[in-house]
This record gives sequence, structure tokens and C-alpha cells, in this order.
Amino acid sequence: MGNSQQFGLGDEAFEAVTEHFETRYFRGTRYRYLPDYRGPLDRGAVLFGPEDFPVCGYPKIPRALLLDPGVPEQFDGPLVVEEKLNGYNARVARLDGDVVAFTRSGIACPFTTYLVRSRLDLDGLFDARPDLVVCGEVIGPENPYTQYAYPDVESATFRAFDLRERPTGDPLPVDRRRDLLDRYDVPQTRSFGTYAPTATDAIAGIVDELDAEGREGIVMKSKDGRTQLKYTTSASTEADLAHAFSLPFEYGQSFVFQRLLREAFRAVEHDVDTTERANAVGEAILEPLVETIEAVDDGQPVGQEHTVRAPPRIVTELLSHLREQGLTIDVLDDETNAGERVVTFRKRMRSTEDKTKAYLDGHPVDY
Amino acid sequence: MGNSQQFGLGDEAFEAVTEHFETRYFRGTRYRYLPDYRGPLDRGAVLFGPEDFPVCGYPKIPRALLLDPGVPEQFDGPLVVEEKLNGYNARVARLDGDVVAFTRSGIACPFTTYLVRSRLDLDGLFDARPDLVVCGEVIGPENPYTQYAYPDVESATFRAFDLRERPTGDPLPVDRRRDLLDRYDVPQTRSFGTYAPTATDAIAGIVDELDAEGREGIVMKSKDGRTQLKYTTSASTEADLAHAFSLPFEYGQSFVFQRLLREAFRAVEHDVDTTERANAVGEAILEPLVETIEAVDDGQPVGQEHTVRAPPRIVTELLSHLREQGLTIDVLDDETNAGERVVTFRKRMRSTEDKTKAYLDGHPVDY
Repeated sequence: MGNSQQFGLGDEAFEAVTEHFETRYFRGTRYRYLPDYRGPLDRGAVLFGPEDFPVCGYPKIPRALLLDPGVPEQFDGPLVVEEKLNGYNARVARLDGDVVAFTRSGIACPFTTYLVRSRLDLDGLFDARPDLVVCGEVIGPENPYTQYAYPDVESATFRAFDLRERPTGDPLPVDRRRDLLDRYDVPQTRSFGTYAPTATDAIAGIVDELDAEGREGIVMKSKDGRTQLKYTTSASTEADLAHAFSLPFEYGQSFVFQRLLREAFRAVEHDVDTTERANAVGEAILEPLVETIEAVDDGQPVGQEHTVRAPPRIVTELLSHLREQGLTIDVLDDETNAGERVVTFRKRMRSTEDKTKAYLDGHPVDY
Repeated sequence: MGNSQQFGLGDEAFEAVTEHFETRYFRGTRYRYLPDYRGPLDRGAVLFGPEDFPVCGYPKIPRALLLDPGVPEQFDGPLVVEEKLNGYNARVARLDGDVVAFTRSGIACPFTTYLVRSRLDLDGLFDARPDLVVCGEVIGPENPYTQYAYPDVESATFRAFDLRERPTGDPLPVDRRRDLLDRYDVPQTRSFGTYAPTATDAIAGIVDELDAEGREGIVMKSKDGRTQLKYTTSASTEADLAHAFSLPFEYGQSFVFQRLLREAFRAVEHDVDTTERANAVGEAILEPLVETIEAVDDGQPVGQEHTVRAPPRIVTELLSHLREQGLTIDVLDDETNAGERVVTFRKRMRSTEDKTKAYLDGHPVDY
């Protein structure tokens, strides 16, 4: 797969974009990755090892603010509705014989690699199609990146939602992808079936049910897999706001604005009680923000807590991996259980701690 | 006043910053101004006419998020508390014999110039101190820039809050400034008197009264006028949020974030009912946003309405002046009354109209 025309780009375009790649090592193998959106490639594109095996990034999925006319505008034929899960994006490829898992930005993750190697048997799939990358979400409570818990998921688990050609990013058609993943026993996100683009009432009904369960939302895909559109629930927006405002200086300010916009368009389309929604949004913003300021005022550390469960050497490798990325990790609990090391740690959020402390100390702001 | 060392800068620093100046004409006179914060000068600094008469910009006033310890941290001696008015910042100078008024960004405004020339007699002050610039706020209902109405103000009126040396920006001491403005009958912002930096409870009491009246807040100044600190009311923050969300695509996203931060720190300091505040904040955000989306959906134009009252030639000049700045102005009402032309117009907010319409038409967003 390694060659001078990776990602289907000409030599000149390839040279231009690789200037923005960063270099890391995974278990002794050098790789390069694209940490941000630049030029023609998706964020997270990887060139792995001395032969530069390419792994495409995962494309941004455009979002509908209104189901009607957002869905009929975007699709000109039947679409498949699948659940959008709340976890972290992972891409899994077999490179020079080894299965490796990359997170969204293109970093090879020791924990995720361990997880997919131990929970999935991908040999059959990769023997048949070594040119594919399995794209999916890692969900569940015991993972180092996200905190959302699903009632039926006990520990971190992988759910595939896409199969793409590794060098070009071309997706397999949805039916073919679902068949192939089923054949090789790779767990997938739920499908709610196929709908006409005009069936926005039925699609809204699916979203309402997910909303009532506090779940994130849906991704709609054309049958060929090439057109995607996402739509998320109020529950998801509120949880995002509460999370962002509990760590106010870690998130970009556009994060907040975009979510308020979603909520307003949803209110307009679905004829909800605006005051009731406004109150919920206000509480999702102000209450976590006040709690965080009070916690800093009390001298408490601010951060996100995660628990991971894996063989000791994987946990050690993961903690080093996170610290190498400049994170401050406080280990809160560290146990060994039936050969697995179970560590609870806090990722310190230094910007929030430092800025909140400065304002509490009376430093003025510049506006 | 024109010389090669305007603003007290050396030749090299002066050359470097003037690269960022823009050029305009006011009634045939060419002038240059600094529309953004750059290098050593404040935004709005002006070099006026062929002799480059300098008019300093008005400095940003730092803001306290907490009165205690914000005020004692910032001041090491007595401070004067003055009302911060809700209008637009104007600087008035006499340049080559003519009084000219500049708005915050350094643009010479025909309406504001007319207003100060007709309402104030500044000759005595400028005869005595031609080197000064009178800094103040234009408030009241009949002005082309802001909409806030004070119960005791019938039409646009100027209230001075500072006197500075025009070339250097050095302020006069507060007492001297208040005396000088009184002597020449220039109306000023209210003073609430002098306080020790530790008198934060008394200062909080002033803010509470202003809040109850829906007024904006206070500016605290050291006696020498050199240290300033502002603190604003909840009423002002909520009005800002409601205004920003009625025109969601006109304001920077940091505008919103900063105001939410203020509200949270205020809630922490003043031990208010967080849920009640959260609900009010949510309503200030979501309700105007939903109203604007619904208005665009109904095909209504979005914008800010203003009424101005002035002699016909001034109104004509003002409307041209606004249109030259790229604004779309819809005249909604146009009457002549006792020799004055009274025009009500709408400044169209094209970003909000266009983006809201695009999303209503089903265009997806990219995140």
C-alpha cells in the first residue's frame, strides 16, 4: 500500500499536505499523521511505518439544523438511519501484519489497539480486504477519553459504523458494509432501516425516542455511503453544554455557540415550549460553571475522571502515552484484579484551573 | 499639535503603527485612524488633516469579575465610583478651529459632531485647554448606534466621563476633570463618591441599585485617573445576551462566552439563586434567537431600528456616512418637524438574515 501516490493525491499536492503532518512513534514504529484539517485530506490521516502505509482520516459529517428541509435537501434517494453513539472515533487497520487503532486526530492509541485486538477477531476481514479501515466508536464506561455510559454496556467496547478504503477514504455501500461486518462478527451501530428523504416525520420519531433515553442522535447515509448527515438530540446538546461549562476554558467558544444554535433551530422546527427549553439550557450552562468556580475556590483540582481496565503493561503504556501528549494525570485509584490493572485517573484541566484561580484572585479581564 | 512624534512614540514605532491606519475624509478633510487594537496605540487613535493633529484612542477598561478581591487588587488608594452609561463612546476635540466628534473606532461622525456642536458650548474649555479631548458617552433614544433608553433622557445627549491630553492620552485627575467640566457646563456621568478599595460592600450596594433600575454598571477610577476598573450589572449582561442572540451571526462568539462567565462569577460572589439566574440567562439566549429564526422564516427583514432627529443636511450626511461603511439602511419613516428631519431607519443585519435563511432552507452546518 505504501507508494508515492498515497491518498490518491498527485506528487505536488501530497508534498504540500505532508508538510503539516506530525511525527510520533508507536511501539518503535515511526508514523506521521495530520492532526488538523488541512488541504485535501481529512484530519487524522496517517502514513504508518517506513513504507508509509496510508490510513485515511474520517470525514467531518455535516449536520442538519432542521430535519425538514435538511434531509430532503441533502439526499436524492433512500437513506439508511443509524444510531450515532457517544464515545470516541477510532479507525482500525492492519499494517504490515499488525492491527493498530488510531483516534480521531491520527494518534495510534495503545489502549484502543489492545481493546480491538482482544475483543475482535479481525483477521478474516483483513485477510479478505487488507485495503480496508474499520471505522467505529469506542463507547462504554471504562475508556480513557469519554465518560458517557450506556445502560447495556459494562466496559469499553467497539461498534463499527463504516468501512473505507484505507488509501482513498472511499466508503463501502451501507448494505455491503453491514453484511461484511456481520459475516466477520464485528459489532456495529444500530440501524433503524431505510427511509425516503421525505420521511422526516418518521425520522423525527426515531430522534424523539433516542432523546427520551438520553442518547446522542442519528447519522443518515445514502445507500452508497458517500453522503452523510447527522442530527442530534436535545439531551446530547444539553449534556455537551454542561460538560463544556464545567471546563469553561478547555473548549473553543464556538463550541457553545453552535450548540445554542442547534437548540434554537430544534425549538423552531418541533414547536416545543421555548421557555422550558430556555430554562434547561440556562441551567446546563450556569450550574456547572458555578460549580467549577466554587470547586476551584475550595482548592479542588479540576479535571475529567476516567477508569481503564487492561493488562498492566497496557495501562502503563497508556498513562505514558497520555503524559507524552502533555496531559497532567493524577492516579486516584490503582488495583490489580484477575491479572488486569484497573486504574482510575484524573486528566487535569490546567487552563480552567489557572484562569478560574486568577479571576478568583481578582485579576481583571480585558473586555 | 501636528509633529513627527505624535502619540509620544519614537519615529520607528510611529511608522510601524501608522501602517495599520485607514484613511477617510470628513467634510473634505483627509484623516487617518486606527480601527483595531495594534501595537502601542489604543483603538480609534486619529491623525486629522494635513498637519496630522493627533487624537488619542480611548483605552480598554479592564473588568472585575469579582468586586472582592478584584477592587483591592487593582487599587492601592481611594477610588471614585462613577456610573457607566449604556450608549456609544465618543471623543470630541477642536482641530484647526473646528469641533469634531469621533466614535470608538476613530471615525469622524457627522451626527455626533452636530450633536456636540449644537448642545454643548466647548469654546471656553478648548480656548483654555486646546490640547484636551473630551471623552464621553452618547446616550438616549434618538441616536444612530444604540437603542438603550434612560427614563430621564428624551433625545440623544452627551455625558463626559474623561478628559485626556489629545496627543498622549494622559488623563486629568478625576477631581480636576470634574471641576473643569462643571466650570464649562459640560454634562458628566454621575459620581457616587470616593471609596476605599476595601469598601466592596458599599460598592456592591451601588451596583445593586443600578441593577434594580436596569442600568449598566460602574467605572471605578483612581484619583489620578490612570487606573480604571469596570463592573456591570446582571441586567446589563442579560440585555447584552438578548441583543446578541437576536442577531446571532453579527457578534463574535467570545461575546457570549464572556457574558456567561461574568454571570457565573457574579453568582458565586453574591450568593444568588443559581437556578433562577440560570433560567433568566437561558431565556435571554434562546427566546430572542428563536424569535429571529421565526422572523426570517416569515420573510421579515432582520436589523436594528434607530431614529435620528437633526437638521435635514445632517441627516442626509449621516445616512450617506452609514451607507459608505457598507451598511444597508432601510428608511422606514421620514418626516420634517420644525425644521428638523426625523428619520427612522433599519440597519439590516445581512449575516444573520443570510445564514439563518440558508439553515432554514436545509443547508447543513459543518460540525
